[in-house]
Amino acid sequence: MVLNVGVIGTGNIGTYHINRLAGQISGARVAAVYDLATERAAQLAESVGAKAHSDPAEVITDDDVDAVVVTSPGDTHAEFILACIARDKPVLSEKPLATTADDGLRVLDAEVAHGRRLVQVGFMRRFDAGYRRVKATIDEGTIGTPLLVHCVHRNPIAPDFFTSEMLPTDSVVHEIDATRWLLGAEFAATTVLTPRRTPLGPDRLQDPQLVILETTESVIVEVEIFVNAQYGYDVRCEVVGSEGTVELETPTSTSVTRDFLRGRSVPADWKERFDGAFHTEISQWVDGLHAGTVTGPNAWDGYAATVVANASVDALRSGQRTAISLVDKPSFYA
Amino acid sequence: MVLNVGVIGTGNIGTYHINRLAGQISGARVAAVYDLATERAAQLAESVGAKAHSDPAEVITDDDVDAVVVTSPGDTHAEFILACIARDKPVLSEKPLATTADDGLRVLDAEVAHGRRLVQVGFMRRFDAGYRRVKATIDEGTIGTPLLVHCVHRNPIAPDFFTSEMLPTDSVVHEIDATRWLLGAEFAATTVLTPRRTPLGPDRLQDPQLVILETTESVIVEVEIFVNAQYGYDVRCEVVGSEGTVELETPTSTSVTRDFLRGRSVPADWKERFDGAFHTEISQWVDGLHAGTVTGPNAWDGYAATVVANASVDALRSGQRTAISLVDKPSFYA
Amino acid sequence: MVLNVGVIGTGNIGTYHINRLAGQISGARVAAVYDLATERAAQLAESVGAKAHSDPAEVITDDDVDAVVVTSPGDTHAEFILACIARDKPVLSEKPLATTADDGLRVLDAEVAHGRRLVQVGFMRRFDAGYRRVKATIDEGTIGTPLLVHCVHRNPIAPDFFTSEMLPTDSVVHEIDATRWLLGAEFAATTVLTPRRTPLGPDRLQDPQLVILETTESVIVEVEIFVNAQYGYDVRCEVVGSEGTVELETPTSTSVTRDFLRGRSVPADWKERFDGAFHTEISQWVDGLHAGTVTGPNAWDGYAATVVANASVDALRSGQRTAISLVDKPSFYA
Amino acid sequence: MVLNVGVIGTGNIGTYHINRLAGQISGARVAAVYDLATERAAQLAESVGAKAHSDPAEVITDDDVDAVVVTSPGDTHAEFILACIARDKPVLSEKPLATTADDGLRVLDAEVAHGRRLVQVGFMRRFDAGYRRVKATIDEGTIGTPLLVHCVHRNPIAPDFFTSEMLPTDSVVHEIDATRWLLGAEFAATTVLTPRRTPLGPDRLQDPQLVILETTESVIVEVEIFVNAQYGYDVRCEVVGSEGTVELETPTSTSVTRDFLRGRSVPADWKERFDGAFHTEISQWVDGLHAGTVTGPNAWDGYAATVVANASVDALRSGQRTAISLVDKPSFYA
Repeated sequence: MVLNVGVIGTGNIGTYHINRLAGQISGARVAAVYDLATERAAQLAESVGAKAHSDPAEVITDDDVDAVVVTSPGDTHAEFILACIARDKPVLSEKPLATTADDGLRVLDAEVAHGRRLVQVGFMRRFDAGYRRVKATIDEGTIGTPLLVHCVHRNPIAPDFFTSEMLPTDSVVHEIDATRWLLGAEFAATTVLTPRRTPLGPDRLQDPQLVILETTESVIVEVEIFVNAQYGYDVRCEVVGSEGTVELETPTSTSVTRDFLRGRSVPADWKERFDGAFHTEISQWVDGLHAGTVTGPNAWDGYAATVVANASVDALRSGQRTAISLVDKPSFYA
Repeated sequence: MVLNVGVIGTGNIGTYHINRLAGQISGARVAAVYDLATERAAQLAESVGAKAHSDPAEVITDDDVDAVVVTSPGDTHAEFILACIARDKPVLSEKPLATTADDGLRVLDAEVAHGRRLVQVGFMRRFDAGYRRVKATIDEGTIGTPLLVHCVHRNPIAPDFFTSEMLPTDSVVHEIDATRWLLGAEFAATTVLTPRRTPLGPDRLQDPQLVILETTESVIVEVEIFVNAQYGYDVRCEVVGSEGTVELETPTSTSVTRDFLRGRSVPADWKERFDGAFHTEISQWVDGLHAGTVTGPNAWDGYAATVVANASVDALRSGQRTAISLVDKPSFYA
Repeated sequence: MVLNVGVIGTGNIGTYHINRLAGQISGARVAAVYDLATERAAQLAESVGAKAHSDPAEVITDDDVDAVVVTSPGDTHAEFILACIARDKPVLSEKPLATTADDGLRVLDAEVAHGRRLVQVGFMRRFDAGYRRVKATIDEGTIGTPLLVHCVHRNPIAPDFFTSEMLPTDSVVHEIDATRWLLGAEFAATTVLTPRRTPLGPDRLQDPQLVILETTESVIVEVEIFVNAQYGYDVRCEVVGSEGTVELETPTSTSVTRDFLRGRSVPADWKERFDGAFHTEISQWVDGLHAGTVTGPNAWDGYAATVVANASVDALRSGQRTAISLVDKPSFYA
Repeated sequence: MVLNVGVIGTGNIGTYHINRLAGQISGARVAAVYDLATERAAQLAESVGAKAHSDPAEVITDDDVDAVVVTSPGDTHAEFILACIARDKPVLSEKPLATTADDGLRVLDAEVAHGRRLVQVGFMRRFDAGYRRVKATIDEGTIGTPLLVHCVHRNPIAPDFFTSEMLPTDSVVHEIDATRWLLGAEFAATTVLTPRRTPLGPDRLQDPQLVILETTESVIVEVEIFVNAQYGYDVRCEVVGSEGTVELETPTSTSVTRDFLRGRSVPADWKERFDGAFHTEISQWVDGLHAGTVTGPNAWDGYAATVVANASVDALRSGQRTAISLVDKPSFYA
């Protein structure tokens, strides 16, 4: 039994998922693709033996498609997810679930009304071996009660189109989800501090930023986001508990010593750092669908992350601590 | 197109390969299995939708089998490999290729006569991200000319049936192959030193041992093999060059600090340490067969490793430096 | 020529300095001591061949005393320092220089009026090999322009008398001075965030705290201070620049591997962590006095640290970002 | 009371000791010096307020000299040590105690006849924080029974006068002493393996070498000595026990991350790596003499190290495993 997957969006991450689904995932194939860039979509479709549709809706309605991966621009996600729910098709959407709280709520309502979990959001860090070990260490009680979390998220160079608002919404959103999950908690407030800007980024860009999140139980999660850090792709996370701490280590396979220096390489980009996490994410999603279940980060997680990220944009603009307000969590997601 | 794989041997490693081929490798399935333990083989076959044969030869001759994985006891490998060559079927044999030089030569002769590469030996370390990075670092000239290699190979506890001779043949054989490959060289002599025995192993077992290998160009490779080291599974390798060194790092994803100690976990066993290497090995083998090629460690590598391991057993018994003599390498393997 | 040192205060740190001055520092001896606890002072004096005075002023006026070390309670420092200036005697005062800005200003005024540097404040981290290397790395331009600094300061267990206000004034004051020095900058604002309290400290104590300092050029220095962290004494500092980062490493001399864990010890307390820094501090102070100079952290540094620490106490109480205002820096300290 | 020290030899290491004794060691001064290079000796003497003698014997017989440090060429050590014993003066001799076993025995006999310990040999590694922690870890039973020791000793570049024989006698002698001390054991045999030579050293020099030492209880100590390793000064030591291992860590105070590399500096030379060990060595020697005792590595340690080093030279020349034979250890050294 092979799972036939339709993919909407064949950009950077879409192509990455398509090639993995086509060549490295047992029990799945790519059945159909769509992209505004029709030529790229057609070539990619041919290379993996899939159809190329001229309308994204066709990917969802195609009877040869069992499940959908959404990797189109973020503001289109909610619409496609809703269409998938309407057709009772499981959907793995890249983050964000939605770019507005309202859109997120529409997805929640639709899935709750549908009565069966179909939606998974692409927060792949939950599938990273390091984050999993951090969570297990917390859950085993090894570090006592979590009090504080220090996160660092650095990229070598941001794309030209990056805006100051995208640091919270496109980058920190990963830490928002990961720490919600690690702590099993929701955020109640956010503040964004604006340090001296790097001279190596565009003038208009507030880079780096220091985002300070507070859970309802006053655990503080601080995130340094720095998208033009030059030196490499570096993601760190230390959870400080009452009896100890647990930290992500940067994966490294070798060290080289020469010229009076012992060095370990730092990942070049998110693909190098999180390739294993993406593989596990997709692999477990496919295996789960074969078993009839969806167990990854759900629509509620996606909604909450969007609300926190958007509140952080407000905080960035206002310079003020900003309260975060979520709707009551539907029991469906308990 | 799915590659139908037959597996001879359903013990520990056989089961490990079968589950991976059945559930995690795109483009392959398990079509047939055999084991002396017929009940275990039947259950495993059923769980992955394969046939269970009552004779290993049937796995090879089965028309529904495109390629064979051999994971039976080491002294049966050569026979099954020869049968695969006779049927023109690609075969991935767990190490060793053969337990005697003569058997290894029979395989070489058969494959050369056949005229097309069919045989790959399961030296999975060549597919480990760390070893690959070590090799790339050497090949890029970063450390200058290699002069010395320090290897450590420690297991927590050896199985009851382990003998002193198995330390070279079953354990060090991995370092023999890996360093031949890293250095692009053959070994010319071997010496085995016998340190004080661990009180935590059986009296009859010389554990640890220090195996000293010399290449034809006098690069020294020393291997500490210690199969009852208790504390974990630990594989290390440092290549010392004229301008610097490169070392494997033990993979770790987190560190935990408590009780005045900052600690990183050490792998529990070879599956934890080399799971990724095994995955890459099998995955690339399957992808290669789809493309009509076999590119992993070949029969010559298997033959050479067997000769060096057996010479090391002689060296262990005699206490003397022992010369290693290989036949001329067939141009087929150049 | 031996420098005769008088020491006011024979508590924990006083005794520590006295024993070092008496036994490990070439070119110095302890000539006189004073403590309210007269018996302890007398015993200590006898053990190092010093006089024990019954009045702290006598230590300063004693003609056999060339220079004074002040290790009495913090609120007495300014008075003793002023007395030393009045007698033209060099004085090394433990931090703080003063507990109020006014007292600090009186010291500044007195020293400026005196016209010759006599005062050094005991910010020993400036003499730690790690902090020195961090500063050198910044100054060499290796990391580009500093933008952010992440500091961690953890103690295993705080003394019973520790109050929430002492986290900024007694602990973070070290980071305040060290980062002023690393960055060559003054602070303009401070905010203190109050995470969930550790259940392992007293209820009345806000522990940990997150102190956010901003320099006049908007470099953000954040300091996690956690005085009941249980697991060890841990001081970390990462300076994030536009082209790279430099971090303190926890000094460690060995690692031990057993029970599936590779571990490095974490220092037990500040004496273990900073013993070398204290040694260098005292040793260079003595050497400097033999050469007729005082070059360590000066009265301005002490004044600035007091103002920033006190503003942080205000910020802790108010929950608000609090502006920091220093007097104009006398050209004497340029 | 100040200890008046006479120093014979004002070369590199002599000057290093003189400056430390004169400026950094409490309770000691340099009273007299001698060197064949009389001008250098005179200048150095003047700079530290010492006499410069024209004959080394005068340093020893000088009534103003309480104790002697010998840092002249190795083959003169025994003679000066014997002269010190004859005058009942404590002597700290740089390694080696003697260059021949016979000279070593003459020192042993003289000290035993004298009846009081006067001789300490400058094996400073015993005073290094890391080696001390390794020894404590072994002695506490943390790693079980020691079975094997892996040592690495690398210098960036050897002086022009270095010969192949000096690798054992001048470099490995440090590991010989350190591991005798760590294990509390004597060596019974030595073998020297000769890997491919580095192209970056002189043709006549066998560099690196692999020295394999065996204790009377069959613990194997292997030492890679590589004196033109280019990249830095690197000393490593891992003691492998039946239940775990303990390793020296290279001291480092910071790490720097830039250009996709996280790096720690490697020491430039032995002064940087072992400055603290030399300081502790001299400081404890002076403190001990004030208390009337000599407790560091003794003449027996010096004799044993010389015999093992010389046997290793024999082993290097012969290519054979060479037995080591020590005289019975005088009960005086028990």
